[in-house]
Amino acid sequence: MSELTPEKFFIRDAWYVVAWPHEVTSDKPLARTVLGDDLVLFRTPEGQAVALEDRCAHRLAPLSMGRIESGGIRCMYHGVKFSVTGQCAEIPAQPAGHPNMCVKHYPLVEKDGFIWVWMGNATLADPSQVMDAPWHSDPRWAPSRGYLHVKAHMGLVADNLLDFGHLPFVHPNTVGAVEQAAFATEVKPLADGVLTDRWYVDVPASRFHQSVGNFKGNVDAWHCFRWHLPAVMSLDSGSAPTGTGAREKAHGTREGAIEFHHIAALTPQDGDHTHYFWVHWRNFDVQDPTMTQTVYDNIMMAFSEDKAMVEAQHAAVRRGSHTAPKAIMADKALTMIRHQVAKRATGAS
Amino acid sequence: MSELTPEKFFIRDAWYVVAWPHEVTSDKPLARTVLGDDLVLFRTPEGQAVALEDRCAHRLAPLSMGRIESGGIRCMYHGVKFSVTGQCAEIPAQPAGHPNMCVKHYPLVEKDGFIWVWMGNATLADPSQVMDAPWHSDPRWAPSRGYLHVKAHMGLVADNLLDFGHLPFVHPNTVGAVEQAAFATEVKPLADGVLTDRWYVDVPASRFHQSVGNFKGNVDAWHCFRWHLPAVMSLDSGSAPTGTGAREKAHGTREGAIEFHHIAALTPQDGDHTHYFWVHWRNFDVQDPTMTQTVYDNIMMAFSEDKAMVEAQHAAVRRGSHTAPKAIMADKALTMIRHQVAKRATGAS
Amino acid sequence: MSELTPEKFFIRDAWYVVAWPHEVTSDKPLARTVLGDDLVLFRTPEGQAVALEDRCAHRLAPLSMGRIESGGIRCMYHGVKFSVTGQCAEIPAQPAGHPNMCVKHYPLVEKDGFIWVWMGNATLADPSQVMDAPWHSDPRWAPSRGYLHVKAHMGLVADNLLDFGHLPFVHPNTVGAVEQAAFATEVKPLADGVLTDRWYVDVPASRFHQSVGNFKGNVDAWHCFRWHLPAVMSLDSGSAPTGTGAREKAHGTREGAIEFHHIAALTPQDGDHTHYFWVHWRNFDVQDPTMTQTVYDNIMMAFSEDKAMVEAQHAAVRRGSHTAPKAIMADKALTMIRHQVAKRATGAS
Repeated sequence: MSELTPEKFFIRDAWYVVAWPHEVTSDKPLARTVLGDDLVLFRTPEGQAVALEDRCAHRLAPLSMGRIESGGIRCMYHGVKFSVTGQCAEIPAQPAGHPNMCVKHYPLVEKDGFIWVWMGNATLADPSQVMDAPWHSDPRWAPSRGYLHVKAHMGLVADNLLDFGHLPFVHPNTVGAVEQAAFATEVKPLADGVLTDRWYVDVPASRFHQSVGNFKGNVDAWHCFRWHLPAVMSLDSGSAPTGTGAREKAHGTREGAIEFHHIAALTPQDGDHTHYFWVHWRNFDVQDPTMTQTVYDNIMMAFSEDKAMVEAQHAAVRRGSHTAPKAIMADKALTMIRHQVAKRATGAS
Repeated sequence: MSELTPEKFFIRDAWYVVAWPHEVTSDKPLARTVLGDDLVLFRTPEGQAVALEDRCAHRLAPLSMGRIESGGIRCMYHGVKFSVTGQCAEIPAQPAGHPNMCVKHYPLVEKDGFIWVWMGNATLADPSQVMDAPWHSDPRWAPSRGYLHVKAHMGLVADNLLDFGHLPFVHPNTVGAVEQAAFATEVKPLADGVLTDRWYVDVPASRFHQSVGNFKGNVDAWHCFRWHLPAVMSLDSGSAPTGTGAREKAHGTREGAIEFHHIAALTPQDGDHTHYFWVHWRNFDVQDPTMTQTVYDNIMMAFSEDKAMVEAQHAAVRRGSHTAPKAIMADKALTMIRHQVAKRATGAS
Repeated sequence: MSELTPEKFFIRDAWYVVAWPHEVTSDKPLARTVLGDDLVLFRTPEGQAVALEDRCAHRLAPLSMGRIESGGIRCMYHGVKFSVTGQCAEIPAQPAGHPNMCVKHYPLVEKDGFIWVWMGNATLADPSQVMDAPWHSDPRWAPSRGYLHVKAHMGLVADNLLDFGHLPFVHPNTVGAVEQAAFATEVKPLADGVLTDRWYVDVPASRFHQSVGNFKGNVDAWHCFRWHLPAVMSLDSGSAPTGTGAREKAHGTREGAIEFHHIAALTPQDGDHTHYFWVHWRNFDVQDPTMTQTVYDNIMMAFSEDKAMVEAQHAAVRRGSHTAPKAIMADKALTMIRHQVAKRATGAS
């Protein structure tokens, strides 16, 4: 196995996005696997979102085939009911409950349009550490949202996001442009992530930005992000007419610019599959549903290009190689993150 | 691996139902896998049903691609022929046979509408131990027959049959009823199985029994079975109008009752798949082919409910768990059988 | 695992047919796996056919998703370019190349209508050892060509070709005939293969030969081949009217005969799959495209019969057996080759 898909490239003591709020309902439980753990997600009739292990404590039937009831969920094989904390609440034809019959409970936070779960030691779970996404409730921004199920190790998906050197090669006709290849990236390490700056000065706009920005000439464009360990990218991007000094100005004050904020949250399903949740906010035409769809279509087209490449890479790595991977200068950010993760990672289940 | 699907949960020295008699013909060999062994089943032109290993002794081509001939079967790769006991009968262009070139032979009994094979030490195979099914030739009973291929370990399918506590939860709209949840089961251990009695007094009839029995009011209903190791259930069931004293009366003398006898024969294909042969005899409308179909449809609908749950449970168990299974009071019969099997089981191949 | 599919039944230091010349183009790279190695095959705009490992040296993305350029191929993930010998030719935004960033290069020969690669130690690769196929450029012969992807270990496909005893059983209605079963095969060992002679005297023509040869009565027919290690068969076959002394005469001088030359080149993909390239030349109707198709159809029909049997045999062997394979007299040639291969084989990757 190559170091590109280390089995241990997972941090368990962390918050991961597990679902969109609208996916977790009182009607039907949702089964979702995270870090190899099968979870059942549901919302009580009282409105509380809950994550438990998706195995009944009795004989391990999936609780996701169960029935949501007030205060908990009932296994529909033999009728054992569990509370929102995974304690046994009822066993049919058995008057006293079984104090040891409980299922694993996962701390859960619902915030700013995401549902997060804590996959590690529950005593370390601190809801205040869940990332803010202030764009969610800011009327100056309008979101487009999407989800991809990627058949690749999370590490390879993270590599892809951490390296904008691939844009001119994978995305020359969508979110990248051939002329971007020559520009370098500034990378600053943080305690739990990196900050990167990548500006392209006096270049043609990418096809995506041209289609929604209608620029007359060249632009100054940027991709600047903060990476949060293990795997959330919070990215500013945009294009402004060249000569307007966009780089020196603050967000919202750039003349003729289109600006975006993007959150990409990567959640390992297991060593071969990754949940990929993204939101792409824009600061223009915020009331226009057609623009929401246009942004969605452009982002999804570009991410499909990434998905094809990363899945092929994953399959190639899994089948083995005569060749050890070697870093190039463009790999600076991803190499930093690989090292940070390696220090904190524990074995995936 | 959880104890719910122990790899060794197989008894080899036992008779297993392998096929219906009509499946084993002189026209075309039948390939079927039992306890991990690939068998070829065929009937000689003289009428004898035969089970051999489905591998030619020459170069292991499947005999199930071969040709049935008088006295045996010929491999159609290079023409080697084997007798009904697996001895080599002919090698093309090689005058003398090869005395050591034989394939494994499995003892076989055809009786009361089932074909049984012995999977263990052939010297211990006693045809007189093959279970009787007297309903097969009794004109007072009419059968409906079915087969399911279940993607689950045989142990989980057996658990399902051994525990009638699941009826009100899995089958509330078919063969069970919500009102049955409160009734307990009497369980008596035997040397090679268990006897259980489960009576539901003064309850609404299950949807199935109501549809064929047309009861005016509540019924006394019953599920009473004898389990034969490893995995044959012989079950009496029925419903009678409440107040007619059905429980104290013998079969056939209960007023207004409908009565059934059921045989479920479970045969492991391997650690992940189970052959499930069943016959459901009734003591009414025995000449009516429409009723035969109605009974079949009702039983198959209920068994499809079981199949969905057991297959989901098997998949969940196979993927692993943070949770060890824990017994409840309703598990008494299945726990007894689990212990009996564990004592006698040998490794599956 | 049975000795019928030994994992080590592969010789790496050898030339293998990897593709037809027309498959290797300048438009799009071709991905093909040989002996477990993933190769990318392409033709430079200058016309040179090239085989490299199908992994970029940077982060192992498949080069078969790359772009063919003058003098080499460029990975379309991050733009690293490799020369025809696998050396790094360019890294974007990185002025000096990386001297150690190279991918494995496989020696390749294009000759007589086949593309061959050397899978072992490149310093031992001798292009002069690549087999001649003079029929390719001889106007007296006309080819039909085909390819099969067989889901079986190469050893089992080779066994099939090395043993003509299967013709009357697998192919009684195509290229074989029941009457052939009685004839023996002369087998002579060589240093790196075997020579076999099999003549059937005064028998009905096979259905194939009858359909293209229109014989009035019985024929003398033959299958005589030279096997080249590891796995190329070069076969003469044909039919001539009985009584014309065909066996004593040289090719091309037999009265009323139809004659064929056949090359079958077997290339292991991995331990469970085999690439099977074949050419069947005929010495009659050489200008007739309808006859080319007729020959193709007949050969493919027969090889489909082999494929079904060999794939079933492979699956049966892989699932295990109670029975060890045993040789019969007809196995002489295949036993010789098995021994020769075992002596030279190294572990498959």
